[in-house]
Amino acid sequence: MITKDSEIRRIYFDWAASAPDIALFPIEPGLYGNPSSLHSEGRAAKLALEDARQRCAAVLNVPANTIYFTSGGTESNGIAIFSALMRRGQGRIVASAAEHSSVREAMDTLDKMGKPTGVIAVDSEGRVTPETLLKALDKYKDVRFASVMAVNNETGSVTDIASLMDIIRKQTPPVHFHCDIVQAVGKVPIDISGWGIDSASISAHKIGGPRGIGLLYLRHSAGQSKTEVFYKGGGQENGIRGGTENIQGAIALANCMEMYASTKTLHENYESAKARWNKLITALSAIERCTIIPQQRSLHLSVQSNNTDRFSPYILQVGFKGIPGEVLARALDDLGFAVSTGSACSSSSPERPVLAAMGIEENLRIEGIRISQGFTTTDEDIDLLLDAIAEVLKFL
Amino acid sequence: MITKDSEIRRIYFDWAASAPDIALFPIEPGLYGNPSSLHSEGRAAKLALEDARQRCAAVLNVPANTIYFTSGGTESNGIAIFSALMRRGQGRIVASAAEHSSVREAMDTLDKMGKPTGVIAVDSEGRVTPETLLKALDKYKDVRFASVMAVNNETGSVTDIASLMDIIRKQTPPVHFHCDIVQAVGKVPIDISGWGIDSASISAHKIGGPRGIGLLYLRHSAGQSKTEVFYKGGGQENGIRGGTENIQGAIALANCMEMYASTKTLHENYESAKARWNKLITALSAIERCTIIPQQRSLHLSVQSNNTDRFSPYILQVGFKGIPGEVLARALDDLGFAVSTGSACSSSSPERPVLAAMGIEENLRIEGIRISQGFTTTDEDIDLLLDAIAEVLKFL
Repeated sequence: MITKDSEIRRIYFDWAASAPDIALFPIEPGLYGNPSSLHSEGRAAKLALEDARQRCAAVLNVPANTIYFTSGGTESNGIAIFSALMRRGQGRIVASAAEHSSVREAMDTLDKMGKPTGVIAVDSEGRVTPETLLKALDKYKDVRFASVMAVNNETGSVTDIASLMDIIRKQTPPVHFHCDIVQAVGKVPIDISGWGIDSASISAHKIGGPRGIGLLYLRHSAGQSKTEVFYKGGGQENGIRGGTENIQGAIALANCMEMYASTKTLHENYESAKARWNKLITALSAIERCTIIPQQRSLHLSVQSNNTDRFSPYILQVGFKGIPGEVLARALDDLGFAVSTGSACSSSSPERPVLAAMGIEENLRIEGIRISQGFTTTDEDIDLLLDAIAEVLKFL
Repeated sequence: MITKDSEIRRIYFDWAASAPDIALFPIEPGLYGNPSSLHSEGRAAKLALEDARQRCAAVLNVPANTIYFTSGGTESNGIAIFSALMRRGQGRIVASAAEHSSVREAMDTLDKMGKPTGVIAVDSEGRVTPETLLKALDKYKDVRFASVMAVNNETGSVTDIASLMDIIRKQTPPVHFHCDIVQAVGKVPIDISGWGIDSASISAHKIGGPRGIGLLYLRHSAGQSKTEVFYKGGGQENGIRGGTENIQGAIALANCMEMYASTKTLHENYESAKARWNKLITALSAIERCTIIPQQRSLHLSVQSNNTDRFSPYILQVGFKGIPGEVLARALDDLGFAVSTGSACSSSSPERPVLAAMGIEENLRIEGIRISQGFTTTDEDIDLLLDAIAEVLKFL
């Protein structure tokens, strides 16, 4: 029984905002050299950096020279999208209506720079489909760059990237396809090479690594000259991302990638996450005031046409009739549970543009809370959360 | 006696590239919440972040709301300079000819975007003077933004920022003055508030902190609307720098700032650094093949008009007749000493644009090496370096 008076055990259900730093490794000594320096310390740092790059590449099954370390997912998205400013010739940059705020803000900057932009609509589950993509390509005619996230950070909707790439690959002139896979890595199966995407963003702190490190996958497309980025800084990372390289961060990211994003671990974690999530969704669906967002997210509808799950078993958006999400989140917080409203990156704004793009009505948008689990979440945590929700519903 | 056969004790003279991580503190547990989240974990993270900001601000003697955490000096320079792209009205952006490559690359990007740019010449010591600044302002007429570094990373030249600000403050319309103080913080006296500069960049790893964290000082100028940056990302750091906040990095930076950049510590370290540097410069000046760069850098000429030293006692550029810098650096590396050629951020390029801007002739540019010391460098280290140089000169 949870009471407000006893010492509260904290149970964390906001993994989509940031994971507990469960995989942090001790800082490796002796790697203080600047990898750009030619002396022994510099060479040792460079070797460590390239080893970390190789390890990340191996987990992702891509060549090491397509991996560029950055400060995180936001910067990776920014580098990819702003590279469009440096490309010769005109061309429109489009992004889905459900992208992370870091992509939305980048599109906003492009607008201000006078670059033509556009929006790819999402379906009622928050997902770009072959139909909505074709509609956008047909509407604009001049699309040269498209950004579509793999797993939505607010609803957990999983996009069938392969089906979109079937369309993208047929475009002439070619369209650069950027994919924010921040909420996918270590959580749901990804296949960068198989999909044939052009770039992708990863953040370490979403999978138990430290803040301030992430990576950009960026392939050199056949027949295209090397990608030029908006800002090279000191020219590090082969001219893609400037600034003295964060070696310790890169090592920690490589450690996390190996620990959580390898095919085997991911699959094992996925199955247990799914079992816990099915239990949670079943129990919540039985509560009269509760609406799963989107409503059609249910166990019976969980498989997409390509035989993959329609939603990530790590993220759930849900609303309770008559209780603003912020009020519910605070009440649960008082009982020891961390859940969020919307994405952490937009929690200061009451708007819910992603839910609005899905056609979710305003009342339900206000009521929405996001519950997200991770690698150390247990069945008992789910039971305790359900108890806490029942407790709160008595009074609210 | 140092030989190549025995186990070599490494002596590090490349602090300007990156400091050994001497001030790293253990990672503080329990701060994994996303500061943008409203729950208990998020609030704890936010408090820790604001405490780190307050501590950095206190050391710099500026208001806490002028401090924005970034991923490092390169990003800080980029944010400041690219904010010029978002300002209303036309206006030229100028930078000194001796800026760090991160500033030079930003200027290059502005050129490509069609923004008017320009160069402020430096004198033969690599320093912007009131005369060269006035000349640039007079030549271009439309300068609205100027970037001038406080301490040059290749030569250690200290710029008298106060004397430049006397001129800048008289300009109408106002000129935003950005100052890269990466090589100044913790090394030479700075006075952000007294100078009245508009923005400044700091990197943690130059003063013993981790990679991937730095800060941007950015004041809201009187009568001007809030600075709008090029890319807000998720809107963190009050809309100035996006991306989930690197709390552990911010804490480590605050620790380093308090440890090395407080007035008292800086002064003590400065005096002992200066004593060691005077000894080194005196000894090197006595070597016939050796040229201090610039040649007029000598103990007799070390004081500027404002009664401060003309050069930082942490950085020395020097050349040996007939020995390419790269060859000398490798030979010293073999003997256990880390020195660099040029800046680490441009070591992959054989050009030495900073030395060229100072009017250093090509032969000497090729011969230049940079020796930089830090907080744990000892008198004995200087003696051993001088012995090693003498040893190398016998064979080269």
